[in-house]
Amino acid sequence: MNVSTNILALLFLALGSCQGLRRHHVDGIVEEEIEFVAQPSKFGSLWPLPQKVQISQVSFKLTGFSFNIVDAKQSSAGPSCALLQDAYRRYYEYMFGNAKRSGKNKSRRAGPTDLTELQVWITSADSDCDAYPSVKSDESYELTVDQPFAVLKAPKVWGALHGLETFSQLIYEDDYGAKSINATSISDFPRFPHRGILLDTSRHFLPVKVILANLETMAMNKINVFHWHIVDEPSFPYMSKTFPQLSQQGAFHPYTHVYTPADVKMVIEFARLRGIRVVAEFDTPGHTQSWGKGQKDLLTPCYSGSKLSGSFGPVNPILNTTYTFMTQFFKEVSTVFPDGYVHLGGDEVDFNCWKSNPNITKFMDQQGFGRDYSKLESFYIQRLLDIVATTNKGYMVWQEVFDNGVKLKPDTIIHVWKGNQEQYQNEMANVTASGYQTLLSTPWYLNRISYGQDWQGHYKADPQDFKGTDAQKKLVIGGEACLWGEYVDSTNVTPRLWPRASAVAERLWSSKDVRDVNDAYNRLSGHRCRMVERGIPAEPLFTSYCPREYRGV
Amino acid sequence: MNVSTNILALLFLALGSCQGLRRHHVDGIVEEEIEFVAQPSKFGSLWPLPQKVQISQVSFKLTGFSFNIVDAKQSSAGPSCALLQDAYRRYYEYMFGNAKRSGKNKSRRAGPTDLTELQVWITSADSDCDAYPSVKSDESYELTVDQPFAVLKAPKVWGALHGLETFSQLIYEDDYGAKSINATSISDFPRFPHRGILLDTSRHFLPVKVILANLETMAMNKINVFHWHIVDEPSFPYMSKTFPQLSQQGAFHPYTHVYTPADVKMVIEFARLRGIRVVAEFDTPGHTQSWGKGQKDLLTPCYSGSKLSGSFGPVNPILNTTYTFMTQFFKEVSTVFPDGYVHLGGDEVDFNCWKSNPNITKFMDQQGFGRDYSKLESFYIQRLLDIVATTNKGYMVWQEVFDNGVKLKPDTIIHVWKGNQEQYQNEMANVTASGYQTLLSTPWYLNRISYGQDWQGHYKADPQDFKGTDAQKKLVIGGEACLWGEYVDSTNVTPRLWPRASAVAERLWSSKDVRDVNDAYNRLSGHRCRMVERGIPAEPLFTSYCPREYRGV
Repeated sequence: MNVSTNILALLFLALGSCQGLRRHHVDGIVEEEIEFVAQPSKFGSLWPLPQKVQISQVSFKLTGFSFNIVDAKQSSAGPSCALLQDAYRRYYEYMFGNAKRSGKNKSRRAGPTDLTELQVWITSADSDCDAYPSVKSDESYELTVDQPFAVLKAPKVWGALHGLETFSQLIYEDDYGAKSINATSISDFPRFPHRGILLDTSRHFLPVKVILANLETMAMNKINVFHWHIVDEPSFPYMSKTFPQLSQQGAFHPYTHVYTPADVKMVIEFARLRGIRVVAEFDTPGHTQSWGKGQKDLLTPCYSGSKLSGSFGPVNPILNTTYTFMTQFFKEVSTVFPDGYVHLGGDEVDFNCWKSNPNITKFMDQQGFGRDYSKLESFYIQRLLDIVATTNKGYMVWQEVFDNGVKLKPDTIIHVWKGNQEQYQNEMANVTASGYQTLLSTPWYLNRISYGQDWQGHYKADPQDFKGTDAQKKLVIGGEACLWGEYVDSTNVTPRLWPRASAVAERLWSSKDVRDVNDAYNRLSGHRCRMVERGIPAEPLFTSYCPREYRGV
Repeated sequence: MNVSTNILALLFLALGSCQGLRRHHVDGIVEEEIEFVAQPSKFGSLWPLPQKVQISQVSFKLTGFSFNIVDAKQSSAGPSCALLQDAYRRYYEYMFGNAKRSGKNKSRRAGPTDLTELQVWITSADSDCDAYPSVKSDESYELTVDQPFAVLKAPKVWGALHGLETFSQLIYEDDYGAKSINATSISDFPRFPHRGILLDTSRHFLPVKVILANLETMAMNKINVFHWHIVDEPSFPYMSKTFPQLSQQGAFHPYTHVYTPADVKMVIEFARLRGIRVVAEFDTPGHTQSWGKGQKDLLTPCYSGSKLSGSFGPVNPILNTTYTFMTQFFKEVSTVFPDGYVHLGGDEVDFNCWKSNPNITKFMDQQGFGRDYSKLESFYIQRLLDIVATTNKGYMVWQEVFDNGVKLKPDTIIHVWKGNQEQYQNEMANVTASGYQTLLSTPWYLNRISYGQDWQGHYKADPQDFKGTDAQKKLVIGGEACLWGEYVDSTNVTPRLWPRASAVAERLWSSKDVRDVNDAYNRLSGHRCRMVERGIPAEPLFTSYCPREYRGV
């Protein structure tokens, strides 16, 4: 065996000069001095950092023609588990590219310091191979790299997927370009069960290909929820089988800018194969202009004085037809999207149109709501929640629904997105004091760009930093990075998301005390170059280079 | 002939909803309300707007199998002008894609409302076909679209290239997807002769492929200068024939992160074929850390007390070897880069190292500089300028060289980049009052990103807005948009540059009174979709869609 100090060779290559270069400051703003010391982390480029890691100095070599990923004999998942077989292929390609296993090379014998096998052992009787991941899925794994072979043990396939990613992150190139890995022992599990990314396909349409590439990248970051904000005011690209007019009239284009049932199915399966849940959001009663184009009488007609103005407001909460429609629509949604949760939105309802409409006023009087339109909003949401409850789904809602005092099922998840740090921390405290589970997004609005290394701010935010009991803290199930679509489409969504979302990914996976920004910078630089090498245009953190640059336009 | 109102059909398609959606404001920042009315401009998607345009309601159809771009009989440039022949092919493909001219289709007769020919007529005896463009090149053209054929007249090939772009921008699709163009009369020329974009290939390496794609896009925007900030502190990717150690030691990687002589040649020729000058910047005496790795004794050794600290400062101005090196180096540069100008930098010299070095102190005393290190800087620059003058090149320098009172050749171009609006306007006034030509960049630092539609600020800045006489205003030869490389590489450089740099392109080309931001928004939205259709990932201005979305990852 070969005692090696080469583990960090790749990193030395990958990290260029990181001196604090003051280049061309403008308007009196001096560019931040980067005080980071660009030196390899003792954890290489592991990202997110596992809970427990021991890396020894003993190293092994790996070659594409002698290395295999195989099911352990004792594993409850065998060759029939397509999810794992697909993952083996994927990680083989990440690790060795398309190195050919030709006949000639095959005859080469593995050397004494070669690592030739990774055995994947699913330990639970039910591997979950054909299941969908859920918020309760066991994602833990244990990885031992040693001779004669490496072993990856996980109760379920979900942990195995994460372990394969971690294994691939341990591989580095020595000075001669040979793939190497050090004897390592890792025990790992996520800090939070809900680690999500919101993409918005209404303000700009994202082709399926682009969604899949980002799901691929989520898996590299151990993100396990794709929050698909699929429709909103500007467009309705979801093709409904029950109400085809919604996308026919409401999409930017009825053929080129829609997600067909086959598209949605493909996204969900592609995500499942990577351990990622797809939580669809159909936001009502606000943010629904595009719904009105294909569904007559769904939206509230606004008045200008005593006459109809011709424009429309939120969903009309006073008509029975509204609830008939919602019942049918969410019945479809509950079958199309297998996840246990659906996101119902409920944010930013503009009351002006409701105020203008005399029929609404009359209804408010009948119900005794006075002029408190949040009561009308709650009236609608309450009925909607009852409808969705009959589909046996849990629901997530934006924080306004909680703020307005709507009666919620105990398993409702409140999604916090508003305010400054003090305000969102108070909100988290209030939500959990009321016994609800919660998700944080406020500090992670990745659409709000600024000059410089804003990932550091995202990295420092912690969803459990608020005043509350341990029981309250346990109600925090995670968070989501949100990339709203006003200024992003397929031309820029991927580099804008990565590696900025990676900062959130580590915050939600790794131990709370993993907070060293300097060490994070070094690991993340390597992780970013790895994403680039895998074909993902993840943007740079700062002046530097990758051994293999992205070559796309 | 077909009187048509279809000219704007493409635009109606291209512009989605632009309502002022207040989505998820955070930290008390309410997103700007977009007050633009998304409606077609009467100028379609022309960008930058030509000086004089008349578009009639009369429309013709064009088809890929009947349309030809040909040399006019009277043209001074014929089939032997590779530049034009290459441009005809390029614009044919932009306009008709890879529509096949198969034998069968060829037999289809052109209809009576078809436009079948664009005749390109170079009117000057010397077409400049094999020349390099210069700051004095005639870029004007006149375009008439009418039956029986369209005519593009230009004194030189440079105007013809711009006219071809304009012609391609006049084509739109009618309701049936048929390509159409309206009878049009255009007379056009640039407001400023120097319309540049700075790309920085030192902080991050940009593969040649990415540089070429951006040159392609510059041509679509009538940008005519690529300011290649090729080396700087972090890396030295320029492979010098005279001093190969500079890139061997100073590049991020000596093979994968360098521009070979063949690469540089290819970039220059690719640019020339599009009417774009390549102005190389070799910035000294500051910003030179990477030079020191391959050239011993070039940089000033810094002291810590009475001992060498091991680090280095700016170029060492007190050694004769420095000037011998610079003479040889710039002799090479002057032959490799054919442009009449070279950019010599001269910005941001840090005096601390010079102050620490006792030999520098002694030299200062001998020269009678006292402790005024800007005198030492000027001493260096003065000698450098004399060296470069012997190569028969003109030079451009950053504003500090002027600010420090260095004696300059009358044709020197002062590049203004510092300060706030008041400060840069004062600087422009001072520079031009001293009789020097000037270029503005301060308001166009595109690396400094912020949330929202920052292109509007770039669009509103005007390089002639300062207090001065008409004679002073005439000394403003244009400006440059700068994209410094700290946070961009090939993963994100293209969408970050476009269409934000397009705003600068119109400011520098079109008439000073073209300032309607609403009209600009509508034309630029269409122009951006055209760039996307041509394969360039230009990012969106706001919520909307393009008929053909970019499909890259």
